[in-house]
Amino acid sequence: MVWANGNFQKLPENYLFTDIARKVAEYQAAHPDADIIRLGIGDVTRPLPGSVIAALHSAVDEMGEAATFRGYGPEQGYTFLRQAVLENEYKPRGVTLELDEIFISDGAKSDTGNFTDLFGSGNIIAIPDPVYPVYLDSNIMSGHGGKQEITGEFSRIRFLPCLEENNFQPETPRRRVDIIYLCSPNNPTGTAMTFDQLRAWIEYALRYESLILFDAAYERYITQDGIPHSIYEIEGAERCAVEFRSYSKTAGFTGTRCSVTVVPKSVTARIREGGTVSLNKMWLRRQCTKFNETPYIVQRAAEAVYSPEGSREVDENIRYYLRNAAAIRSCFETMGCRVFGGVNSPYIWLKTPEGMGSWEYFDYLLQKYNIVGTPGAGFGACGEGYFRLTGFGTAESTEKAVARLLA
Amino acid sequence: MVWANGNFQKLPENYLFTDIARKVAEYQAAHPDADIIRLGIGDVTRPLPGSVIAALHSAVDEMGEAATFRGYGPEQGYTFLRQAVLENEYKPRGVTLELDEIFISDGAKSDTGNFTDLFGSGNIIAIPDPVYPVYLDSNIMSGHGGKQEITGEFSRIRFLPCLEENNFQPETPRRRVDIIYLCSPNNPTGTAMTFDQLRAWIEYALRYESLILFDAAYERYITQDGIPHSIYEIEGAERCAVEFRSYSKTAGFTGTRCSVTVVPKSVTARIREGGTVSLNKMWLRRQCTKFNETPYIVQRAAEAVYSPEGSREVDENIRYYLRNAAAIRSCFETMGCRVFGGVNSPYIWLKTPEGMGSWEYFDYLLQKYNIVGTPGAGFGACGEGYFRLTGFGTAESTEKAVARLLA
Repeated sequence: MVWANGNFQKLPENYLFTDIARKVAEYQAAHPDADIIRLGIGDVTRPLPGSVIAALHSAVDEMGEAATFRGYGPEQGYTFLRQAVLENEYKPRGVTLELDEIFISDGAKSDTGNFTDLFGSGNIIAIPDPVYPVYLDSNIMSGHGGKQEITGEFSRIRFLPCLEENNFQPETPRRRVDIIYLCSPNNPTGTAMTFDQLRAWIEYALRYESLILFDAAYERYITQDGIPHSIYEIEGAERCAVEFRSYSKTAGFTGTRCSVTVVPKSVTARIREGGTVSLNKMWLRRQCTKFNETPYIVQRAAEAVYSPEGSREVDENIRYYLRNAAAIRSCFETMGCRVFGGVNSPYIWLKTPEGMGSWEYFDYLLQKYNIVGTPGAGFGACGEGYFRLTGFGTAESTEKAVARLLA
Repeated sequence: MVWANGNFQKLPENYLFTDIARKVAEYQAAHPDADIIRLGIGDVTRPLPGSVIAALHSAVDEMGEAATFRGYGPEQGYTFLRQAVLENEYKPRGVTLELDEIFISDGAKSDTGNFTDLFGSGNIIAIPDPVYPVYLDSNIMSGHGGKQEITGEFSRIRFLPCLEENNFQPETPRRRVDIIYLCSPNNPTGTAMTFDQLRAWIEYALRYESLILFDAAYERYITQDGIPHSIYEIEGAERCAVEFRSYSKTAGFTGTRCSVTVVPKSVTARIREGGTVSLNKMWLRRQCTKFNETPYIVQRAAEAVYSPEGSREVDENIRYYLRNAAAIRSCFETMGCRVFGGVNSPYIWLKTPEGMGSWEYFDYLLQKYNIVGTPGAGFGACGEGYFRLTGFGTAESTEKAVARLLA
């Protein structure tokens, strides 16, 4: 009989957002007239920008003609898009990368998850708490978490507490860790690392020869100076860091699927047999073997994001979501809550009032105001007592939610 | 310092088709005037059917309007497409499956590769030889291959020789294996399993409680009776088999990316701690954690394949490729080669003449005729001395290739 991967048993059965969806569906079924406002899952609501729609139509037409039809494309992504990424995401920030260090994929979720394929056993893995659940779950799933203690903790995972005391910025650990996940601007706390804070991590990684996996999915929401948009803006990162970027929150691609992963050729890891290997080569082999490519039409859509018109439209959408975030932030401040994020991020992170638990507050908001948010505890133990709301709703539903809460 | 997954070192550095592409590019660079005809990689050349193009345009328009815009969809795929799969792929063949047994994904390559995430250690894995390289490579990569012997063989892999003597149909092994990959119609041999042949495997799997991973990516090319289009046409398969289907070769989606994986709820595996687990639940958890979904617009495109017009267009394309395959088959027969496949498959599998090696014959065809095929050895040791050609070229290039070969 087949042996299954027993590590799956160490995971909660459902993914966080699946749980929330079920709870909301049950509430809606019991209260069919309730006008539920969803400010929970980080999903966008603005339609795709006009320039992206035009690029899609044009690429679809190409696919309908034999002369311009495209079958299999390069597993790493088309050159036109990788070149556009270099020119638009990196060059203006003084970052030099090579074309074959850029990988186009179908989402930062897939890539951060699948990147664990490259890890050997024996690494100590540091993960912020609270944070996007995929980093932890994908490592547990692949056995990289190590043994599960009776307390529920994993022998090879070190959580990096992100608390009010440290402005939600994880501190470098005193002992060696091998792999470090960082997400800035952070999901869920909405706070962003400064140059100095991120530089400290790069120095740490270079000293201990650790690997940083840097998730920059929300960089486009940065409004303040002094906050890096890419980890490669800091010297040395090209020797220790992999960066994940996404069109999901930037350009509304949550249902269209496209992302960028950067694996510099100078980032290496060691193998038991001795010597080091290039993670760039490994990732290429992984993608060539277990992935095909992002659809051609979607790569053309992503390219359009960099056109002057596309760029303007994207900026407008970002401002729209940030206005929502500001309205939610100010609403909860008025209500007397301690509120964080929402300035360089679409996420608002709030301390639940009167010591309520995260899920308790979830039920309270759902039942009393018919507003859905995300319990902080879903992002890690340090998220208990906190709650995430997002600026990704429509302006109308956000205003309505604010009005309900302040009524 | 980070430990890398050392199993990657056990793989050849390049994926087969990457190697071929490089060789062809080098030849073209050295002979800029050579009119190279590519009948190597199994990539389609017909444009997307008109009904698919229309569905794409319409879905793109939906994405451009706030009222119809779609963000994150269900990780398992939209109900409209899963329902269409049930109604069109399975119901007409008397196969009853449930909606939550169907998973939409971005390709059979991704899914057959990623499915190895579900395997524990300790399985004996049977893989046909020759076959699509992803089954072997993805298992080596994840360490499921076991120890690599000095001969290059892997301790936990059992190859199932597919030779002229057994009509290229693998025989059930005398000893127990836990996981079995089958591909019918087969890539690369172009031969298909009969009901009786496949039934023998299901009986074997039920007796030993093994798991069959059945790749049906080429089922639409079946022209003869007596060949199952789905493994679930045979009783008992719903308790031991997972099936992979794809729109790539069926509807020209190699650059558009959509596939279907079926994981019946009654297929289980055991865990070390005792008891059994449902592979359906595990795959759902895997996909929810490390995948988002296939783009909405692509799912609408796949749905259109089942419209009366889409179905007619797809049939026409399949006949087109099969006519090419028949022409190639007959050409090599005229040349005195032993030729297989090409009847229920777009692939022609031929014995290289005069005992030439696979790569030797590759170079010979490329240099003498400027025709690119795929060396059989790239699909496994038993493929040595064989060569794969495909009917996926255009009718014009196929005719030109035939004329060159027979000149």
